[in-house]
Amino acid sequence: MSDTRSITVELGERSYPIFIGSGLLGGGFDLSAHVRGPDCLVVTNETVEPLYLEALLAGLTGKQARAISLPDGEAYKTLETVEDILDTLVENGANRDTTVVALGGGVVGDIAGFSAACYMRGVDFIQVPTTLLAQVDSSVGGKTGVNHASGKNLIGAFHQPRAVLIDTDTLKTLPDRELKAGLAEVIKYGAIMDADFFAWIEDNLEALIARDAETLAAAIQRSCELKAAIVTEDERESGRRAILNFGHTFGHAIEYCQGYGDWLHGEAVAAGMVMAAQLSTDDAALAGRIERLLDRAGLPTRPPAIAATDFMAAMGMDKKVQQKQLRFVLLRALGDAVVTSDYDTSRLHAVVEAMS
Amino acid sequence: MSDTRSITVELGERSYPIFIGSGLLGGGFDLSAHVRGPDCLVVTNETVEPLYLEALLAGLTGKQARAISLPDGEAYKTLETVEDILDTLVENGANRDTTVVALGGGVVGDIAGFSAACYMRGVDFIQVPTTLLAQVDSSVGGKTGVNHASGKNLIGAFHQPRAVLIDTDTLKTLPDRELKAGLAEVIKYGAIMDADFFAWIEDNLEALIARDAETLAAAIQRSCELKAAIVTEDERESGRRAILNFGHTFGHAIEYCQGYGDWLHGEAVAAGMVMAAQLSTDDAALAGRIERLLDRAGLPTRPPAIAATDFMAAMGMDKKVQQKQLRFVLLRALGDAVVTSDYDTSRLHAVVEAMS
Repeated sequence: MSDTRSITVELGERSYPIFIGSGLLGGGFDLSAHVRGPDCLVVTNETVEPLYLEALLAGLTGKQARAISLPDGEAYKTLETVEDILDTLVENGANRDTTVVALGGGVVGDIAGFSAACYMRGVDFIQVPTTLLAQVDSSVGGKTGVNHASGKNLIGAFHQPRAVLIDTDTLKTLPDRELKAGLAEVIKYGAIMDADFFAWIEDNLEALIARDAETLAAAIQRSCELKAAIVTEDERESGRRAILNFGHTFGHAIEYCQGYGDWLHGEAVAAGMVMAAQLSTDDAALAGRIERLLDRAGLPTRPPAIAATDFMAAMGMDKKVQQKQLRFVLLRALGDAVVTSDYDTSRLHAVVEAMS
Repeated sequence: MSDTRSITVELGERSYPIFIGSGLLGGGFDLSAHVRGPDCLVVTNETVEPLYLEALLAGLTGKQARAISLPDGEAYKTLETVEDILDTLVENGANRDTTVVALGGGVVGDIAGFSAACYMRGVDFIQVPTTLLAQVDSSVGGKTGVNHASGKNLIGAFHQPRAVLIDTDTLKTLPDRELKAGLAEVIKYGAIMDADFFAWIEDNLEALIARDAETLAAAIQRSCELKAAIVTEDERESGRRAILNFGHTFGHAIEYCQGYGDWLHGEAVAAGMVMAAQLSTDDAALAGRIERLLDRAGLPTRPPAIAATDFMAAMGMDKKVQQKQLRFVLLRALGDAVVTSDYDTSRLHAVVEAMS
C-alpha cells in the first residue's frame, strides 16, 4: 500500500476530505470513522457490487451497513430509482443520522447523492468512486441529480459529501474505454486551469494509459486539487465554476443527438473540447495541441455525423443557455478558461459546419 | 390599504424579506421586482386559483407568468405531483433564472418549494401563503418537501424563498376551522418563545377570531419575527430550531393514527401542545393556561380516542427520534422551551394513558 494522499475541499462547516491511495478498500482505511451515526446504506450497482462491496464493508466495522444494488447504466438515472432508494431508507428505519455511501461511477454517485439530499431534507453522504471519471470529477463538488426525459441532470441538488474515498486499485478493473473517458476530464483540468499540468499529462500519458498506479494517483490528486479550488470559489456555479463545463455544451449536444448511451460522456466531452478550442481562438496551435493529446489518449476528436442544424438546435436546449444567448467556456490560452457569450457567431457556425 | 410591515430573515446571502399587509395582491405590491429572471411558474391549487391567481398575476407585470393548478389536499403532497411541476417547468423551457411562486397554503408551498429546490439543482422561489398556518409557519424558514407513504415530509430539502408575500386579505376567505388551526401555531410561538406575546394573544383572541385585520397582521408579524429569529440561529434544525416542534411529536402521532386528513395539522398540534405541557412540568397552572387559551380558540385540547400502545408506537416512528431515544420539546416555563430527552418516562406513559 502506498501512502494515502489527502486533499480538503474548503467549504466552511461543509468542508470535507478526499483520500486518494491504493488498498483503501478491503480494510486498509477506516471509513467508519467518517460515518457519524450508527448505520449506513451503501448504494452500488450490479457491476460494481461483486467487485468491491465486500471490500467496502470491511472498512465499515461497527456500523450497521446495508446495501442496495441498482441496475447498471445511465438509463436508470431517474427519479424512479431515487424513489427505490428512499423506500429502502424508510424500510430500514433510517433516521436523520444515517449515511448514504455511493460505491460506483458517476451515475451511482449522482443518484445516491440526490437521494441523500432528499431524505429527511438531507442526510450524510460519502462518495467511493470506482471510475476515473467519477474520481476526478463527479464525486467532488456536491452536484447530484437525475435525468429528466427532456434533459440530463434537470432534477437535482447541491449536496456536498462528508468524505470522498478514492482507491486507485479500483481502476484495475475499469474497462479501457472508460479509463480513457476519464482521462478526457483530466486533460480538461490542464486545458482550463493549469498549463503545467497539461504538459505533465503530455509527458506521462503512456504511463496513465498503462495504469501505472503512482502516475494515476498523481493525476487524480492534481485534478481533485483543481476541482476543489473551483468548488471553494463558487460552490453553486453562479460564476467561475462553469469553466468546468469546457467542451460540455458541444459534448451534451453530441450526447443528446445520439440519444445518450452511444458515446461515453468523456468521449463526447473530448470531441466537444476540440470544438470549444477551435471556437476560442484563431491560434490553430492551441486547438491542435489539445486535439493531439486527446487523440493520443485514444479519444474522439470530432463528433459523429450530426447535421449542423440538429447540432445547433441541441445546443439551444442546453442548460447553460441564459436568456436565449448561448454562453461557452472558451480558452484565452492554455490553462486559462473563461465563460463568455462574447464570441463570433459565424465562427460558431463554421466550427459546427466543419465538424458535422 | 394599511401600511405594509416588513421583516427580514437574516441568513447572509440567502436573507430574504417577509412583507405583511392588506391589499398586497391585486397590484398593490410589485412582486415582479423580486423575480430575477424573465419568467415564473405560479403553483397553486384548484381552491385558491379562482380566488387569488388573477390578483397575484397583477403584481407580476413585465414577467412571463404561467400557472399550474394542483388538486387540493395533503393527499397530493407526493413526489408524483413534484414530477408534474418539473415536467411543466421543462415544457415551459424554464431555465436556471426562472422563479417558482407558491400561491396557497402549506401543502402548495411545500410542494412548490421542493420542486424549485430540485429543478436544475435549485431555482428561485417565492412564497405567497394564503392560509394563516402557512403565513405564520410553513412559508418562512425554507423547509420544503413531500410525504412518503410511510411518513410525512420524509422527502424534501431546505430551500429558502427569495421573498414571502403575506396579504392578510386572503384570510377573509379562509374557512373558520383553518383560521383556528393557524391560531394554534400562533399560540405555540407565545408558549415556546415569548410569554408577553402569549398574554397578548389571551387579550386579543376575540379580535383574532373575528378576523380583525390589524390584530391579525400584528399576530402574523410577531409570529414571523419569532420564527425568523430561530431560523437565523439554526437554519437546518441541528439544534434549537427543533423547539418549533413543540406539541408536534404528540401531534404527528395523532395524525398518523388517524391516517392523516381527519384533523387538521394545527388541531393535532393543539392537542399535542397540551400533552407536551403536561409532560413538561408538575405545574398544572402552566398546562392549564395553555389548554384554556386553545380551548377559547375553538381548538381540541385532547387527542381523539387512540389506544395508548398505538399512540406510543406512532411516536416511535416519529422523525425526531434520535437513536431510539424519544426527544421532546418541553417547557421550562411559559415562553421558554427546550429540546430534551431528560424527562420521566413513566410520566410520558401517564400523559398518554390519561389522554387516550
